[in-house]
Amino acid sequence: MSDSLDSLLEPFPFVKVIPVQWGDQDAIKHVNNVVYFRWFECARINYFEGIEGYEMLYASNLGAILASITCDFRNQLRYPDTVHVGSRVTKIGNSSLQMSHQVISEKHAIVAAEATSTIVVFNYETNSSCRVPDTVRETIARVEGREFDD
Amino acid sequence: MSDSLDSLLEPFPFVKVIPVQWGDQDAIKHVNNVVYFRWFECARINYFEGIEGYEMLYASNLGAILASITCDFRNQLRYPDTVHVGSRVTKIGNSSLQMSHQVISEKHAIVAAEATSTIVVFNYETNSSCRVPDTVRETIARVEGREFDD
Amino acid sequence: MSDSLDSLLEPFPFVKVIPVQWGDQDAIKHVNNVVYFRWFECARINYFEGIEGYEMLYASNLGAILASITCDFRNQLRYPDTVHVGSRVTKIGNSSLQMSHQVISEKHAIVAAEATSTIVVFNYETNSSCRVPDTVRETIARVEGREFDD
Amino acid sequence: MSDSLDSLLEPFPFVKVIPVQWGDQDAIKHVNNVVYFRWFECARINYFEGIEGYEMLYASNLGAILASITCDFRNQLRYPDTVHVGSRVTKIGNSSLQMSHQVISEKHAIVAAEATSTIVVFNYETNSSCRVPDTVRETIARVEGREFDD
Repeated sequence: MSDSLDSLLEPFPFVKVIPVQWGDQDAIKHVNNVVYFRWFECARINYFEGIEGYEMLYASNLGAILASITCDFRNQLRYPDTVHVGSRVTKIGNSSLQMSHQVISEKHAIVAAEATSTIVVFNYETNSSCRVPDTVRETIARVEGREFDD
Repeated sequence: MSDSLDSLLEPFPFVKVIPVQWGDQDAIKHVNNVVYFRWFECARINYFEGIEGYEMLYASNLGAILASITCDFRNQLRYPDTVHVGSRVTKIGNSSLQMSHQVISEKHAIVAAEATSTIVVFNYETNSSCRVPDTVRETIARVEGREFDD
Repeated sequence: MSDSLDSLLEPFPFVKVIPVQWGDQDAIKHVNNVVYFRWFECARINYFEGIEGYEMLYASNLGAILASITCDFRNQLRYPDTVHVGSRVTKIGNSSLQMSHQVISEKHAIVAAEATSTIVVFNYETNSSCRVPDTVRETIARVEGREFDD
Repeated sequence: MSDSLDSLLEPFPFVKVIPVQWGDQDAIKHVNNVVYFRWFECARINYFEGIEGYEMLYASNLGAILASITCDFRNQLRYPDTVHVGSRVTKIGNSSLQMSHQVISEKHAIVAAEATSTIVVFNYETNSSCRVPDTVRETIARVEGREFDD
């Protein structure tokens, strides 16, 4: 196998390491598809915590809401294994962020699933979406090492 | 089989009917043990809602906290099936209630599991347990059709 | 509100009715996003069971695998509520099916989420995807009341 | 605080370290009671894997079944935290084992919950419980550093 775990994870500024639990498996003896979405949630939160994004949002009475998610399942997973869920921001729109994830099997050094989350910045006072704050934009640009167009 | 579903459920003033989901099964192709505790939670809440117990507690700024639970697994369950989770209060102490549950398989009319929850009445203002309010005691006695000693 | 529950569900030949559980809520006091994917799984299985699709697949030693899923969250859900998850097949490819779902809140008669599942027919003997059997195609065409191009 | 994490974990030959996930919390903003039973399952499996117990059982076509579990909740948990779930065998009967668990909060170095699992050794050929094999008894006695009466 040509891909190593490290090279697969290289594109991601944040990686959440999560052990597969025996109980994550369903009657087909594979990790159930629902479990992946718990992992993506962990990964999104891990990214935002890593950039201190929640502090930046809360300071302006804003929150981050999952607007949509799409997932392609590439390879089945089984217990025991450990997944490394990489996350990176691929797009910053006016009021939303797009985050890409890969679930990598540590045991097999392969991509088990790829997903894209769209996260909307939400103002709890006005009850509507609002522009991603500049502090968040600048921090993500720095962490990702690239510029983002609106 | 001598037991009917009805006779098994007869002792319980409240019964929560919950369809078994395919995804409730684990790699052994039985309903995973963890799922039962979600069912007991549904059943406890169903009982309290049924007697309007939350309204009585909240009126005094009180809450109900699960202090302990014990469960005996009697028979395995598989998808498809529907469980009927019966609940009844078996004891009212000073600051706690004991609630007994049975998980009954609709398909096989057998007891899949029996459990006992101990629920403590908690005062969020004083941050300590407190006496079960008389309104709750009286309502449960009426619903259960019996007297309870402290 | 102009939409009724019935009119929202009208496009779907199969609807799975699932009560929201208190424990489906997360710390934001909304139904957690992960729960929706359990519901979609229930809905997919419900559709296949409804058309006796598994029998048709198993007869040829085939299975159905979730290849991808995409979900748009439209409105938050809270306990108590009951969701009606409608499913219909929108496309039949060579070796895959596309199924569309809507999660409808009974309480508010609104769409809480929309999703599309792509399901691949898989041959466990050759360990590869394979053409959707004609029996499955014909049954779906009849149930959906329309023709499908490959 | 007089107790350290180390001293709390000292009685347990096996300790499973599990990060609390944000999504483990329920609408009360505490880790939901159901999650603890997933943790106990992980801890039981971790113990059996640690003593190579499954290999010993499978060699004789035996399995280990959870017959009952009881849990006392001592302190609430919140995200973020990491739990250390200690497990030790406290009793070996004819056909069953009793395993005690403690869930320890890393952040607060306190016991969040205590539980006892009763595990029955089961013969899948005769479909009945059977005597705990001597190899398993001897390994547990060595790991626990004590003798067990039947």
